[in-house]
Amino acid sequence: MPRVVALAGGVGGAKLALGLQLVLAPGDLAVVVNTGDDQEFHGLLVCPDHDTVLYTLAGLADRERGWGLAGETWAAAGQLARLGEPTWFQLGDRDLALHVHRTRRLRDGERLTTIALDVAARLGVATRILPMSDAPVRTRVRTADGWLAFQDWFVRLRQEPAVLEVAFDGAERAPSGRAQMTPEVQAALAGADAIVICPSNPLVSIAPILAVPGIRDAIADARRRGIRVVAVSPIVAGRALKGPADRMLAALGEEVSALGVARRYIGLIDAFVIDEADAALAPAVERLGIRAVVAPSVMTDDASRAALARIVLDACLA
Amino acid sequence: MPRVVALAGGVGGAKLALGLQLVLAPGDLAVVVNTGDDQEFHGLLVCPDHDTVLYTLAGLADRERGWGLAGETWAAAGQLARLGEPTWFQLGDRDLALHVHRTRRLRDGERLTTIALDVAARLGVATRILPMSDAPVRTRVRTADGWLAFQDWFVRLRQEPAVLEVAFDGAERAPSGRAQMTPEVQAALAGADAIVICPSNPLVSIAPILAVPGIRDAIADARRRGIRVVAVSPIVAGRALKGPADRMLAALGEEVSALGVARRYIGLIDAFVIDEADAALAPAVERLGIRAVVAPSVMTDDASRAALARIVLDACLA
Repeated sequence: MPRVVALAGGVGGAKLALGLQLVLAPGDLAVVVNTGDDQEFHGLLVCPDHDTVLYTLAGLADRERGWGLAGETWAAAGQLARLGEPTWFQLGDRDLALHVHRTRRLRDGERLTTIALDVAARLGVATRILPMSDAPVRTRVRTADGWLAFQDWFVRLRQEPAVLEVAFDGAERAPSGRAQMTPEVQAALAGADAIVICPSNPLVSIAPILAVPGIRDAIADARRRGIRVVAVSPIVAGRALKGPADRMLAALGEEVSALGVARRYIGLIDAFVIDEADAALAPAVERLGIRAVVAPSVMTDDASRAALARIVLDACLA
Repeated sequence: MPRVVALAGGVGGAKLALGLQLVLAPGDLAVVVNTGDDQEFHGLLVCPDHDTVLYTLAGLADRERGWGLAGETWAAAGQLARLGEPTWFQLGDRDLALHVHRTRRLRDGERLTTIALDVAARLGVATRILPMSDAPVRTRVRTADGWLAFQDWFVRLRQEPAVLEVAFDGAERAPSGRAQMTPEVQAALAGADAIVICPSNPLVSIAPILAVPGIRDAIADARRRGIRVVAVSPIVAGRALKGPADRMLAALGEEVSALGVARRYIGLIDAFVIDEADAALAPAVERLGIRAVVAPSVMTDDASRAALARIVLDACLA
């Protein structure tokens, strides 16, 4: 069975990651997750994209709500509100336990990657879920009112102010303490038979991963070895299936379509999976030097997740 | 109405503190709580005696279980166990929220006292609940197997190993960073019309408070002003009403009786309330230079808590 590395953000990425996990042998998948949207709440480090992937791959995610754990309770959140803590970023009781645990171990000096691997194992996940870096990278967005931490914009302000600029502090900036590719991500990319870019937001889920020094080069090295990189469009029929990618592309002056996303991946990927609804864009994608794969790409259940995973793997390995 | 300062540990102290709160005008009571049994769990500071007093005075305590919050849930504890955290010290979901909140504020640089006053106000408590110090004091006990953190002995080992010695790190030791009386405790004692020592364990609840540099002297200053100090025996008919005080006194070679406790308070208190069951000890207490007050001292409901509070205040103020 092939060893596969997927790059993923939150919900959309987690869906395809689950599809890949369903069709690959246990342990043959590694998911490199965006940590740019990590943020401290109540003094605890919360890693929303990592945890969405973790809970999804562990079979613990709440699929109806779209985030957090199924059967979650909210007693602690109520008490935190009573004590005056801002609670616009909702943390359920069992979710809070993970943040308490992870923060304790970070303060004890462990690496984020070590903790993630151990937590996934304890929750029964054979897939390696790898934070894109151990050192913090923090995505910020500039709006008309200035720079905001990502979750402030994403959750508190419900993505309403238009995004004029995106920055990845710790990756692009502050060279002295800046993040770098971890040994685990390096080893996963060096040993990969296929690399998949999940249908996550290209601007704030995939871009921060690629901004971590070393990762883009490691992907390029893999391609020089003949390994194919295949991305899946998060934009279908001009709309993001989930989240603000469409509005962000528009505000940044880019084309709001699968083709607009493909343009961002020029030189990075070999093939691009676009939905049947966007079949007409295939020739334009191919003119970018990217093979276009037209397929049903909307994942509504485990069967469609696995089906899309097979299409992606075929594009990588065929 | 008189202004009263009570020194208290956990459950027994909280009961009399509630009685005093019931019979005094709102805000006329300050409770100086033991912080010697504070300990970090999951990287969060837990203050068991403080929180027992807080929850009791806020009307939120679980009276049947004897600790924690009424109607508490345990979802986070289950997840912490699944993640491999030791969970012998049980923390409910809403209780955990307080520890998260307090730890966040301490890490932000606030004083423990400031946080305690704010938390009590948010939970609707007019009584000032004052940690005995802002800097950590940590009670340790020596057993045949060596020194243990207090909660390790108290909860994890269920108080089974005999205690050969007690130490209050941070109060008695480590002079450079050692704890001292806070301005709030100093002001409360300086303005007190009466000082009450609650029926808490004299060895590990009251002794650490008195070990904080400044507190014993401030009580002596109050007595020189004519303020009376009245203690209530936590030992009735040779047994501790709650907790290990009787076994600890025995292991340390002291008399396991109200008289044994009175001996520890020589020179500190003016009067000592002993239960009717111990009326025969009254002459021996008086021979120590302490007025003996014989009264029903077992608190089973709010009426008996208030009744004992009135007896104590009468002994202070009559």
